[in-house]
Amino acid sequence: MSRSSAVPPPVTAVLDAGSAWLPTRLGAVETMLRELAGGHGELLREDVTATLAAGGKRLRPLLVLLCAGPPGGDAAVRAGSAIELVHMATLVHDDVLDDAPLRRGRPTVAATSGRARATSAGDLLFSRAFALLAGAGDRRAVELLSEASVSLALGELAQRRDAYDTAVPEERYLERCRLKTARLFECACLMGLAARGRAGGESAQPAPGEAELRAFGGEIGLAFQLLDDVLDVTGPPERTGKARGTDLLDGTVTLPLILAIRDEPALAEVELRGIDAAAAEALCDRIAATGALEEVRSRALAMVAEAKRRLGGPAFDREQAELLGLVADGVVQRYS
Amino acid sequence: MSRSSAVPPPVTAVLDAGSAWLPTRLGAVETMLRELAGGHGELLREDVTATLAAGGKRLRPLLVLLCAGPPGGDAAVRAGSAIELVHMATLVHDDVLDDAPLRRGRPTVAATSGRARATSAGDLLFSRAFALLAGAGDRRAVELLSEASVSLALGELAQRRDAYDTAVPEERYLERCRLKTARLFECACLMGLAARGRAGGESAQPAPGEAELRAFGGEIGLAFQLLDDVLDVTGPPERTGKARGTDLLDGTVTLPLILAIRDEPALAEVELRGIDAAAAEALCDRIAATGALEEVRSRALAMVAEAKRRLGGPAFDREQAELLGLVADGVVQRYS
Repeated sequence: MSRSSAVPPPVTAVLDAGSAWLPTRLGAVETMLRELAGGHGELLREDVTATLAAGGKRLRPLLVLLCAGPPGGDAAVRAGSAIELVHMATLVHDDVLDDAPLRRGRPTVAATSGRARATSAGDLLFSRAFALLAGAGDRRAVELLSEASVSLALGELAQRRDAYDTAVPEERYLERCRLKTARLFECACLMGLAARGRAGGESAQPAPGEAELRAFGGEIGLAFQLLDDVLDVTGPPERTGKARGTDLLDGTVTLPLILAIRDEPALAEVELRGIDAAAAEALCDRIAATGALEEVRSRALAMVAEAKRRLGGPAFDREQAELLGLVADGVVQRYS
Repeated sequence: MSRSSAVPPPVTAVLDAGSAWLPTRLGAVETMLRELAGGHGELLREDVTATLAAGGKRLRPLLVLLCAGPPGGDAAVRAGSAIELVHMATLVHDDVLDDAPLRRGRPTVAATSGRARATSAGDLLFSRAFALLAGAGDRRAVELLSEASVSLALGELAQRRDAYDTAVPEERYLERCRLKTARLFECACLMGLAARGRAGGESAQPAPGEAELRAFGGEIGLAFQLLDDVLDVTGPPERTGKARGTDLLDGTVTLPLILAIRDEPALAEVELRGIDAAAAEALCDRIAATGALEEVRSRALAMVAEAKRRLGGPAFDREQAELLGLVADGVVQRYS
C-alpha cells in the first residue's frame, strides 16, 4: 500500500463495500483523536499532531467499529479512539527505544523533539486513552485495554530479552508476537463487542461470537506481525518508510531469520551486535535467498484464512462477516 | 529522614498513633505490590523488585488508606497499590529521561538494565495499575488515576519545555509542580474517599469532605515538591541518594533558583547548559547564600499548615484528621 494516501486501501475497500454508518464513525474517531491531541495546548500539539498526521492504517479502530456494528454508537467511537491512542503511544515509545529516525517515512517524535519529550508524550497518549474511557464509564473497555497494554509491555520486554539471540526458538518468537501485536487486535475486536453490549445493556453472559472474534483478532494480528517482519527484510524503503534490515540493526530476531537459519545453519554465526546498515542489507539478501520469506508469507496467509473461517458461524450476520473479511484481506494486501 | 530504614518516619509516626487497622492495610498494599511485580516471570521481577525494594515512603498509599478510613477495605488496598505502581512507573521513566545513575542511593533500572528495558518496565507498571483497578470494577478510581496520570505527563512535558530557562516565571514553576506532583497527592486522597464510597454504596452526590481532601492533598503535594527542590540544593548526597544540584545539571529551574535570581539578578546569567557537577555545586552554594532556601521552606510550611486547617471541618472525625495531620507533618520532617 502507499503510505502517503489519505485513506489506506483496506479502509477504502471496506468503505466501498457501502455501509453508510461506517464512514461517519471513522470520521468521528479521527475528530476525537485530533481533539485529544490538540487539547493540551502547545505542549503536545506539535508532537502528537505529527504522529497523527503520519497516519497509519487505523486498522484497530476499524476493527472496533466493525465488531461493534451499527449499534456500537459513541462507545465504539471512544473505544476506537482509545485503542489508537495506546497504539500511537507504543509507537512513540518504540521509536525512543530504537532511536529510530523515521516512522512511515517521516521524522519520529524522538528524532524531532528528543527522547525525553517523546517518552512523556507517549505517557500522555497512554493516560489519555484510559481517561477517555473511564470518564465515560466504559468499564469493560478499560479492563480490556489495560490488560492488552500489559501484554504490549511484556512483549516489548521479551523482545529486549531475546535481542541478538539468533538461537531464539520459533515458539518464543510467536509468543512475543502474540503479546506485542496480536493481543491488541484481539482487544480491538472485544472492545467493539463490548461497545455493542453497552448499547444493548450489559450482561454477565459472554456475548455471542466472543470466542470467534477473539480468535479472529488474534490470527490477523499475528499475520500482521509476520508480514511486517517480512517487509523489514524485503523493503523497499520508499514503501516501508524505513531502511531494510532495521530489525536486524536493532538486534530483533524475527521469523524470516529463524527459518533461514533452520535451512542454512551457517547464518546463525552472524554476529548481530554492531553490524552496520550495509551488513544488515546483505543479511536480508541471504535470508531472502533461503526461501524463508515465502514460507513466512504462506503461514501468514493461512492465519488470515483461519481468521475468516471463524466468522462463518451464526453469531455474525453476512455484512459483518464480509466487512471483517475485507479487513483481514487488507492485512495481506499491504504486502502483496 | 534516613532512606535506608524499612519503615520511613512519617509512616512510623502514623502507625505509632495506634490505629490497629492501618498496619494490616499497609501490609496488604506491600504484598499486592510484590505479587504484581513478581507475577510476570523473570522478565520483570528483577527490575521491579529492585524498584520496590528501594522502597520510598509509600506516602501516596498511606494517604489513600487514611482517607478511606477503616471502611475502605479491599478497594482502598487496590487503590493504594495502583497509585504506587503509577508513581513507580513515573520514577522509572524519569530516570530514563534524566539518565540518572542513582535513585535513593541505589542504581536505577535505567542504569542497570538499559533505557529500553526501563521504558518498557515503566509502561508495564503503568498498565498493571489500570488493569488492577479495572479488573475489580473500581470505576471512579480508574477515572481519578487516569486523569492524574495525564497531569503527570503534562507536568513532565512542561518541565522539558522550560528546561534551561532561568527566566521562567514563578507561577509557571508552581503550575508545573501542581501537574507533576500535587495532582497525584490529590488523587490519592480522592481515591481513598472513593474506596470508602464503594464500601458504603456509590452515590452521584459529592462525598462529604471531597473539596477539603482535594485541597489537603494539593497543598501537601505542592509542599512536598518545594521541599524536594530545596533538598536538591542542600543535599547532603548521603541523605538524598543523589548528587547536589542534580536538577541544575538536568536544566530544571526550580523555586530556589527563581527566588535567588529575584534577589541577585546576576545569577540569571549562569548558563545551565553543559555545566558540570562542580559548577552545579557552586551554584547551589550561591543559591543558598541568598536566603532563598529559607523562603521556599517557609512557603512550604505555610502550605502544610493550610492543608491541616482544611481538616478541621465536621466532615472529618478526630482520629482521621490527626492521622492525616501526621502525614502532613511527615512531609516537612523529612527535610528538617
